[in-house]
Amino acid sequence: MLIIGERLSIISKKVREALIKKDKEPIKQIAIEQWNFGAQMIEANIGPAEDRGKELMEWVVTTIQESVPLPVSLDTTNPAAMEAGLKIHNNQWGKPLINSTSLDPERFIMFELAVKYSVPIIALTVGKGGLPRDAEERVEIAVQLMEKAVEYGISLEDIYLDPLVLQISGSQNQAKEVLKAVRLFHELNDPPMKTIVGLSNLSNGCPKHLRPVLNKYFFALLMYEGLSAAIVNPAEVIEVVKTINVITGKTLYAHSYLEI
Amino acid sequence: MLIIGERLSIISKKVREALIKKDKEPIKQIAIEQWNFGAQMIEANIGPAEDRGKELMEWVVTTIQESVPLPVSLDTTNPAAMEAGLKIHNNQWGKPLINSTSLDPERFIMFELAVKYSVPIIALTVGKGGLPRDAEERVEIAVQLMEKAVEYGISLEDIYLDPLVLQISGSQNQAKEVLKAVRLFHELNDPPMKTIVGLSNLSNGCPKHLRPVLNKYFFALLMYEGLSAAIVNPAEVIEVVKTINVITGKTLYAHSYLEI
Repeated sequence: MLIIGERLSIISKKVREALIKKDKEPIKQIAIEQWNFGAQMIEANIGPAEDRGKELMEWVVTTIQESVPLPVSLDTTNPAAMEAGLKIHNNQWGKPLINSTSLDPERFIMFELAVKYSVPIIALTVGKGGLPRDAEERVEIAVQLMEKAVEYGISLEDIYLDPLVLQISGSQNQAKEVLKAVRLFHELNDPPMKTIVGLSNLSNGCPKHLRPVLNKYFFALLMYEGLSAAIVNPAEVIEVVKTINVITGKTLYAHSYLEI
Repeated sequence: MLIIGERLSIISKKVREALIKKDKEPIKQIAIEQWNFGAQMIEANIGPAEDRGKELMEWVVTTIQESVPLPVSLDTTNPAAMEAGLKIHNNQWGKPLINSTSLDPERFIMFELAVKYSVPIIALTVGKGGLPRDAEERVEIAVQLMEKAVEYGISLEDIYLDPLVLQISGSQNQAKEVLKAVRLFHELNDPPMKTIVGLSNLSNGCPKHLRPVLNKYFFALLMYEGLSAAIVNPAEVIEVVKTINVITGKTLYAHSYLEI
């Protein structure tokens, strides 16, 4: 399970202000905190970044990698910013990840960048008709994404299929569809396709005290279904990750397993 | 999910002393507490109860049902004590449950009691050769138990198959076998066979702070596999039960779902 720290996102006011002011300290602090809680990669979500996106992505990737010895998941819809991030990324601690492409032809350029820089890419199973209605529709879209990726010369092992976690407060029935989609995605190839989710959208719009509860148990079930990677708050899921790994026999039980 | 409160057990010192002294107060208090946390049945585990088992079971069943409007799961290896419990049980709030039978011929008398009193029964998948080694062996034993039950004239719908949760600290690889067994048990009949576990044995022998963590996440996975019933500490699992029911769409999401 690849844990990608989600907290360096433009949707956070603290991060937004740091990006505007080019203030390295809050960025470093959040990166280090997530690393301490077990993040193996740091997500840098700078949003559409239409204005000065290139410079912004370069700055944030450099700032993150000055603080922690980790690769970065590059999240922007701006292809120039994406390419700038890929160029400046220090691959010493692993390859970056492109977040993301989809069936929207405007985003096919991300496939090109994945090939050019030989890096993995997240493929969102959002169709031309909008949000997927169930697991089966997610699978149909996934197959089209895989075909498209192959056209571009991308190895299927470099694709992370994202079933799109929706808000439980508004789309409750989608939670179990996402779990089912993760299971079905794996079966689309041998070796199994890789899968990824952005976890916290599940509890977006829920009361604050409920959010970690919903996120944690949903994550337990996603892990049980064999999820490969997740963009999460590492502090929130560290207990789940360790415990499910013990229960499923992926790590050895020790009385100290939560502290290790 | 049928939640059976586990805490009225002879293995608890407090309960043991109350049973010896015939002190109703601690028994009532524990029964009420579990009822408040959502128990739908109270387990009364009086152990082998070779000495005055009949009288003891009568007393404990009556004491429980004087305190809470719930049926009782009767747990003893003493057939006379079991029958006394079945006789005195007030079925106004539901039938009692016989805990338990197995492939041990000495325990076949429990099948006879299940038929005589027309009550459901727990069938432990422990074989003649001792503890089951994996899910498949549990299934083999389950099939033999089902055949035996049918011989005695028991409807398969009255059987709860128990895959035997073992201690994770000593038998770590059995945790995932139990999860798999629960899945496979359901497929042994249509409508699916009912399944039950005694949850807390999982973390028996683990440090105190780990016990609820292991129990909760394991229970989340068991629920996801469709478990029908569990003998648990209701206070420990109430959050899991409500959250997994929301995630899997069994109950409707509301911002107040944890309080309902």
